[in-house]
Amino acid sequence: MTLIKFIEIMAILVGAFSGFIEARRKRMDLVGVFTVAFIAAFGGGTLRDILLDRRPLFWVIHQEYAILIFVLALVASPLIRTLRQIVSERLIVIADAVGLGLFSIAGTSAALDANMPIFIASMMGVITGIFGGVLRDIVCNEVPMVFRDGKPYAICAFLGNWMFLLMGKYGVEHDFALWSSALLISGLRLITWKFDLRMGR
Amino acid sequence: MTLIKFIEIMAILVGAFSGFIEARRKRMDLVGVFTVAFIAAFGGGTLRDILLDRRPLFWVIHQEYAILIFVLALVASPLIRTLRQIVSERLIVIADAVGLGLFSIAGTSAALDANMPIFIASMMGVITGIFGGVLRDIVCNEVPMVFRDGKPYAICAFLGNWMFLLMGKYGVEHDFALWSSALLISGLRLITWKFDLRMGR
Amino acid sequence: MTLIKFIEIMAILVGAFSGFIEARRKRMDLVGVFTVAFIAAFGGGTLRDILLDRRPLFWVIHQEYAILIFVLALVASPLIRTLRQIVSERLIVIADAVGLGLFSIAGTSAALDANMPIFIASMMGVITGIFGGVLRDIVCNEVPMVFRDGKPYAICAFLGNWMFLLMGKYGVEHDFALWSSALLISGLRLITWKFDLRMGR
Repeated sequence: MTLIKFIEIMAILVGAFSGFIEARRKRMDLVGVFTVAFIAAFGGGTLRDILLDRRPLFWVIHQEYAILIFVLALVASPLIRTLRQIVSERLIVIADAVGLGLFSIAGTSAALDANMPIFIASMMGVITGIFGGVLRDIVCNEVPMVFRDGKPYAICAFLGNWMFLLMGKYGVEHDFALWSSALLISGLRLITWKFDLRMGR
Repeated sequence: MTLIKFIEIMAILVGAFSGFIEARRKRMDLVGVFTVAFIAAFGGGTLRDILLDRRPLFWVIHQEYAILIFVLALVASPLIRTLRQIVSERLIVIADAVGLGLFSIAGTSAALDANMPIFIASMMGVITGIFGGVLRDIVCNEVPMVFRDGKPYAICAFLGNWMFLLMGKYGVEHDFALWSSALLISGLRLITWKFDLRMGR
Repeated sequence: MTLIKFIEIMAILVGAFSGFIEARRKRMDLVGVFTVAFIAAFGGGTLRDILLDRRPLFWVIHQEYAILIFVLALVASPLIRTLRQIVSERLIVIADAVGLGLFSIAGTSAALDANMPIFIASMMGVITGIFGGVLRDIVCNEVPMVFRDGKPYAICAFLGNWMFLLMGKYGVEHDFALWSSALLISGLRLITWKFDLRMGR
């Protein structure tokens, strides 16, 4: 398994995990747990692809991820409390930060491939990174967390996307631009988490 | 009128009816009643078609259904209490179960036509069957009923979709596979309703 | 700047403004304020274009509007209370009514261009005019205002769309049909607002 595949799986699992927890908190049944986990994991990329009119969707090509979440929903429901005790919050935040970086830059890159103008491309990257959580919260009948907790989660993605876009504009080698920008997002996210930085309201 | 057309209309009416009731419970006005009924009736198929990138949408080709719901919304609002007394719950559950079977298999079949992998096709069938109600509940600011009541509604659709997919794989004649699978879903739904079966949480 | 461009910008600003207010009421942070304002301004047209499968989206071609809302979100948050005192409610209602007329007819016209049947075209026009507000309210975890306040907001749009459609059918010159229908919607909206007319429930 390549590194990128490993990161991808970890990021999807963290997204799904956030869905499991939210769905259980709302006392949902198996159908709700699976659906909310699925939406949390794939909602951002799906919305981006619908806006860009890209098909087939990521999870349609890789049905193994849908099956993975399905199996996890079957076994995870009774185990979720145990899992939360075993898996430290630190690990979840790190995996989530890595996923945020990777998926945001992937979203920005996909938008550029679809000839989006530069500001729209940066927005598409942020949508990819955060709308899984937004749609999860809407389905769970909550005001989306990322819109109200004042943590600079989306801002980290936005800044990294712009670094990626500017590097592209100034001819920086594509792979280096991609990885360093994703790393910037993950790093910013971890720093703001570590020091519990908040935006003013 | 053919049998399939009759079933289609009944299933759409039952979907719209669930929207009327929910919208009235939220004290919505005429615009809300129509929109929620429309979403309840067509939301699942519309979401499936957007995910599959299929156009034109079902209700675009058959505008007579949109007009029907519009007229019903105009006349039904004052009559909804009377209607609920006349129409027995048994009749509603039966019509809904028949609709669930028909639309789930139609959704699975449409996904196969669009070359979806098998697990995704089974999901698309369930989405077609249940997301009208999910979107109805989201617009009405509720946690979707189908995610929290523990009744095996989506599970019935899921099992029937797999019977349909496996019959297709093993060369069973298409029409027979379609009707027997739809019948299985409707039957399972009615049995689980009759005995009030619930999933564990 | 042409008149139509000026109206367009005013209507978008009013939509965004309604998002600013709603997001602030929910105590959202900068990310929420921008997103909700963006959804309020462009949600209706975006949903219509997804249903019709039209691309590129309006705000993708005109990224200057997205940037404008972004800058306003940056500066507007602290100023929103002052702004609400300076800008009279009358001015907001007038700008909103003009926008409702313009966007509803534009939506109906776009649906006709996409060969929609006539009733569906009238619905697409209403969706364009009202679903920005609907999606704004859903993201803010409220039952959509336009579905429950009994004010004939969507009805005005619906009537004007039909006037536009009938004028087209009977060969009235296109530009005259467009402007007079948009004017009818704006006028009806302002009259019903002035006399505080409500629909029965």
